[in-house]
Amino acid sequence: MEVKAATEQKSLLSVLSPGKRTRLRRLLFEFGPGHGTLMMLPIDQGIEHGPRDFFPNPASKDPEYQFRLAAEAGYSALACQIGLAEKYYPDYAGQVPLILKVNGRTEVPPSDDALSTTNSSVEDAVRLGADAVGYTMYLGSPLQGDDLHQLKGVREDCDRFGMPLVIWAYPRGSAIDVKGGRDSFYAIDYAARMAMEMGADVVKLNMPKLNPETDKDAPAPYSEREFTQQEAIGHCVASAGRALVVLSGGSKTDDETVLGHTRSVMEAGGSGVIFGRNVWQREWSEAIEIVGQIKETLVNHVQRIP
Amino acid sequence: MEVKAATEQKSLLSVLSPGKRTRLRRLLFEFGPGHGTLMMLPIDQGIEHGPRDFFPNPASKDPEYQFRLAAEAGYSALACQIGLAEKYYPDYAGQVPLILKVNGRTEVPPSDDALSTTNSSVEDAVRLGADAVGYTMYLGSPLQGDDLHQLKGVREDCDRFGMPLVIWAYPRGSAIDVKGGRDSFYAIDYAARMAMEMGADVVKLNMPKLNPETDKDAPAPYSEREFTQQEAIGHCVASAGRALVVLSGGSKTDDETVLGHTRSVMEAGGSGVIFGRNVWQREWSEAIEIVGQIKETLVNHVQRIP
Amino acid sequence: MEVKAATEQKSLLSVLSPGKRTRLRRLLFEFGPGHGTLMMLPIDQGIEHGPRDFFPNPASKDPEYQFRLAAEAGYSALACQIGLAEKYYPDYAGQVPLILKVNGRTEVPPSDDALSTTNSSVEDAVRLGADAVGYTMYLGSPLQGDDLHQLKGVREDCDRFGMPLVIWAYPRGSAIDVKGGRDSFYAIDYAARMAMEMGADVVKLNMPKLNPETDKDAPAPYSEREFTQQEAIGHCVASAGRALVVLSGGSKTDDETVLGHTRSVMEAGGSGVIFGRNVWQREWSEAIEIVGQIKETLVNHVQRIP
Amino acid sequence: MEVKAATEQKSLLSVLSPGKRTRLRRLLFEFGPGHGTLMMLPIDQGIEHGPRDFFPNPASKDPEYQFRLAAEAGYSALACQIGLAEKYYPDYAGQVPLILKVNGRTEVPPSDDALSTTNSSVEDAVRLGADAVGYTMYLGSPLQGDDLHQLKGVREDCDRFGMPLVIWAYPRGSAIDVKGGRDSFYAIDYAARMAMEMGADVVKLNMPKLNPETDKDAPAPYSEREFTQQEAIGHCVASAGRALVVLSGGSKTDDETVLGHTRSVMEAGGSGVIFGRNVWQREWSEAIEIVGQIKETLVNHVQRIP
Amino acid sequence: MEVKAATEQKSLLSVLSPGKRTRLRRLLFEFGPGHGTLMMLPIDQGIEHGPRDFFPNPASKDPEYQFRLAAEAGYSALACQIGLAEKYYPDYAGQVPLILKVNGRTEVPPSDDALSTTNSSVEDAVRLGADAVGYTMYLGSPLQGDDLHQLKGVREDCDRFGMPLVIWAYPRGSAIDVKGGRDSFYAIDYAARMAMEMGADVVKLNMPKLNPETDKDAPAPYSEREFTQQEAIGHCVASAGRALVVLSGGSKTDDETVLGHTRSVMEAGGSGVIFGRNVWQREWSEAIEIVGQIKETLVNHVQRIP
Repeated sequence: MEVKAATEQKSLLSVLSPGKRTRLRRLLFEFGPGHGTLMMLPIDQGIEHGPRDFFPNPASKDPEYQFRLAAEAGYSALACQIGLAEKYYPDYAGQVPLILKVNGRTEVPPSDDALSTTNSSVEDAVRLGADAVGYTMYLGSPLQGDDLHQLKGVREDCDRFGMPLVIWAYPRGSAIDVKGGRDSFYAIDYAARMAMEMGADVVKLNMPKLNPETDKDAPAPYSEREFTQQEAIGHCVASAGRALVVLSGGSKTDDETVLGHTRSVMEAGGSGVIFGRNVWQREWSEAIEIVGQIKETLVNHVQRIP
Repeated sequence: MEVKAATEQKSLLSVLSPGKRTRLRRLLFEFGPGHGTLMMLPIDQGIEHGPRDFFPNPASKDPEYQFRLAAEAGYSALACQIGLAEKYYPDYAGQVPLILKVNGRTEVPPSDDALSTTNSSVEDAVRLGADAVGYTMYLGSPLQGDDLHQLKGVREDCDRFGMPLVIWAYPRGSAIDVKGGRDSFYAIDYAARMAMEMGADVVKLNMPKLNPETDKDAPAPYSEREFTQQEAIGHCVASAGRALVVLSGGSKTDDETVLGHTRSVMEAGGSGVIFGRNVWQREWSEAIEIVGQIKETLVNHVQRIP
Repeated sequence: MEVKAATEQKSLLSVLSPGKRTRLRRLLFEFGPGHGTLMMLPIDQGIEHGPRDFFPNPASKDPEYQFRLAAEAGYSALACQIGLAEKYYPDYAGQVPLILKVNGRTEVPPSDDALSTTNSSVEDAVRLGADAVGYTMYLGSPLQGDDLHQLKGVREDCDRFGMPLVIWAYPRGSAIDVKGGRDSFYAIDYAARMAMEMGADVVKLNMPKLNPETDKDAPAPYSEREFTQQEAIGHCVASAGRALVVLSGGSKTDDETVLGHTRSVMEAGGSGVIFGRNVWQREWSEAIEIVGQIKETLVNHVQRIP
Repeated sequence: MEVKAATEQKSLLSVLSPGKRTRLRRLLFEFGPGHGTLMMLPIDQGIEHGPRDFFPNPASKDPEYQFRLAAEAGYSALACQIGLAEKYYPDYAGQVPLILKVNGRTEVPPSDDALSTTNSSVEDAVRLGADAVGYTMYLGSPLQGDDLHQLKGVREDCDRFGMPLVIWAYPRGSAIDVKGGRDSFYAIDYAARMAMEMGADVVKLNMPKLNPETDKDAPAPYSEREFTQQEAIGHCVASAGRALVVLSGGSKTDDETVLGHTRSVMEAGGSGVIFGRNVWQREWSEAIEIVGQIKETLVNHVQRIP
Repeated sequence: MEVKAATEQKSLLSVLSPGKRTRLRRLLFEFGPGHGTLMMLPIDQGIEHGPRDFFPNPASKDPEYQFRLAAEAGYSALACQIGLAEKYYPDYAGQVPLILKVNGRTEVPPSDDALSTTNSSVEDAVRLGADAVGYTMYLGSPLQGDDLHQLKGVREDCDRFGMPLVIWAYPRGSAIDVKGGRDSFYAIDYAARMAMEMGADVVKLNMPKLNPETDKDAPAPYSEREFTQQEAIGHCVASAGRALVVLSGGSKTDDETVLGHTRSVMEAGGSGVIFGRNVWQREWSEAIEIVGQIKETLVNHVQRIP
């Protein structure tokens, strides 16, 4: 089965408003690896998982570590919540673009009916000089109705202020758990499309995991046909259509996987990666080294023109 | 038993505000098959069902396919959500009227207490040059109170901006499941009336299915009298009163059924059809062909003067 | 036991604002039977019960039937929801006063925790030239807190725009079911007082039903004393105080009951009736005939000066 | 154990804004028994209990009875909801101060998770010439979070308009039932403090009931120490601090109890009483007589300077 | 394992807006022990626990006691809710800075799904001349989504008005109870980070309690590694990053513990303490004495430069 390659997608920038185009171009061409790629550094784990993620590399507990890394290693942008943005970004203002993440939740309550409520606004992002806004959308949660309605407000403000919208598209909740699970191809493919339909300019996806055991609970064709891993990520990227796709990393893994995933998403027509723990859970020199390799991989495998 | 034919309904256009009249006339007379008919192309399945609907015709995964089809095959209008409207409609602006669908939900959570929350606004529709707004109303859902209150806001904005309101009138939820089901004559007839009472200018209905087995759980007279299929659809169209009715298609079926249903709704006093998968799950040439046949059927069976 | 007769109530009109007085006078003296009476035609059954109510008289399915009846038979006012008001009232504007019903619910979901959410506004009523607003309040529903808060907004807007407020005062929900039931004297008497306390100018009540079997579950004195039917309705009318009372009809019954109830409420100090199905489920000539008899009964038994 | 006497409290009036001071002085000195006392007539039982409270004295069913009583017997103020205020107060405007009660609930639904939603506003009170606003706060209800947030809005408006705030401080709901009950010393003492902390100028309390059987479920010291009845009411009054305290009456009882309670609360440093059924369930002459005795008791036992 | 000492944190004041800097400097340098320390007196127990906390020292029941203590003993600030602020602060205005606590809840309902709703606003704080705003955030409550969204509004207003934000960071609710409990190192460490991420300028923490029995239910590394008490508090302070940390006291304990905890938090890089019952449950002279000792301990162990 053939899918029209996402690399044949029409230009995203060409349909964006002047404000969105100005800001998104900064991330794609002026900062980071450039050439239309996106290398983002997320530092929202302090909310989503708590400080436990900082123990493997104690230096990472001080947000200075990630802010300095983002600026010095040459990232396209750094993504964080309001507290860090207000207290640490001033020292790096203009040195690396800021993506203000406007919602979040802790890992403490169960995620069966997950909803990530907003704790800051697009107006905050404008005030802080951010170049984009981040939003976590939980596809399939029983509270998805509240989620989509909340996202409406964020999206409208993004349109009003010319602020690019990056959607963290995460399948979540009890209903998706019984249809293949949150990492399934069905779930991630649906999330990619949903994020684009809701107005994302950039969609952040996890790598889909093929698992015949659980995929059989998903609807056809996911439950019936066989797909290769590269086909799966290719479909997900295509589902995001004109929106750009960045692949997220998850918990720390080995270099080969990191770079392999980077290559995969670029070859599938994606625009970049957003790896957090895989980078800043390393000591400084090791972090700088893997960042260099990620950059090279990104630039060498660009297929999509944004 | 005789029903006053819907074709004897007084004119809808004559009671509409100038803004609504201007825009609705475009759909009825200036674009599409004309002669007061409506042939709409829905492309909201990416939200409602996810990308799985695009596998039968891989080309359909790229929204370009449907947008180009709507423009080139000569549709009255294309209906989609905000993401597609913002990212794909600019290239077709003015070539085919846009219906901005302002709410939606995924199929992942169960629909027992379905509520389709808004993800865009009538103001978005105005900004994008749309000629109508679409809203999904779930008749009989336990959350119907929230639904009707939300619809109030959309309807008020439609009145304020002179934007025609198309209501997707869908019986849904646990309560209707035990009174004959979502496709029953009772449910669809009720939905048609409800949509009109809530201020719809156009009502989108599914074809009612007569089933003595389940109809006995509906209230009288639905549980007691026998109706022919044509009487049933006639009643539903009459229940929408002065509002125009378009019949929706559902999953892909054979040409005969497609055209038969088209004829049925027109003879019952309906104004047109809104078939999605039945059209764009076909390859381009086949799609163009069936569209031609639908057009002809619509124009040949016009009874209602809008 | 003696109750101070409601007929000795002080004047309602004398305490109303100029806007309310102007509009309510139209219903009481300029249209309908006059002499301070109210004969209202409700056409909200399409929402509350669905189209099933229209089958006994197929002509009634077209709202034209009721609108024409209200205008030609000389009603004090016609009560309907926004959809009918916008699509059918224009043809009868000024020929019969309009009461815009601003909330409603379908009969599909169970009514254990009933709440009738608003689907239009007092501002809509002003815009449409209506002379009053109608609101359904469910006394005793577990969601009554939301109900009363919602009613606050409607009442405030009525005060702001000088729009008379008619409250459909209906006991409803699981809690009243175990205290004598929704039709009990206790429930209706409470509803009458509640509606007045919440700011009603006119209260619509069902006829209380005395039933020793279930009345014993109500609080004293309802569970302990014996009341005649006329005493019961007398108490209910008195509980509404300075607010006017109209009696509703319910499902279709024989002429004798219709006229008997009309006489009862007038003798109890009520101001009129609001019969729907009992009128428009009849063919035109029969409908005209019973309307004439109701009018005569109303005028002949006026006791209360509004 | 000694408690600093509430009579040593600093002046409340001295910290009030000019608007609050102007209005509250009217109640304390210009109307009613004067000398810094408060004798209020509540007429909110029609909402809270329904018309059943009016049967013992049929004349009381007509709100005229209470309004005339408040004006002629010389009350400090009359407290009622919006419906009575709009329909009956105009005839007595300026003859007796009005306290507009802005929230209420019926007794029909269970009170396990009681919440008394607002049905009118401080702005209504200003518009009607009221001299204070009344609010029922349910201490300890599972919905107390909503309650306190709602109260925030009312309190803010009172601050904005210079309107004194009277809080009906009632322990209520499933959680208090298992900690000694709604009438326990623990519950009433907590309610008194809570009302003051939330911004009450006047706190309405029920008389605490000492009951070793149930007090043992309350926290220490309520479960451990012994208190006399006068100590208990003394503590409750002291807990309200600078806010004034009025004691409420409850269902009708004998004269001795009425006057005894009046004396108790005054000696404890309270400022007055708010007895409803104990007064207006009596026939006119008897009502006038008990009112005279209450007045005398109040004035003879003043200890607190407001 | 080494943690970058919080004492090496960059300056907080340097990134604050002029309004926040002006006000926070007052607490850190102009009032209280000075030298960049914070000694706060909380008087919100009347809401959170009821009057029962006042029995050990009856004089403390009159808020005058704490207000006078705060002013005369030389506190950095006094923290209370709106009622006390409006009724008692006027007499001490300018003599001791005020922290207006804008939310609160009683102890009556279970705290499984705790949410502390706002009962006053940042605007109230500005109006009353307060120098900071206090907010209780319940980390991990099932209602944390509502909490964070509510906090968003408070934080935005703090940014708008230049008002420092003090967050009471309390783990609470059923979900944290099964992951080590509300006092566990995991929970407090998470709360510290969360408060900072949500925009706190000052974070109020309880002392973490190490308990192998329950810590094993927390995630790694809390469940796996051993930590000393001083390491634990060190981590918590570090997790708050650039935000200042004050340690709260809880129920009354002996002097040694009070002063030991004070020393601990200062050595960990904290900025001060907020002890309530440990101070005002003592008689005047004893309270003055312990305050003196706390002050001395604070000043002698300053490590963090704000």
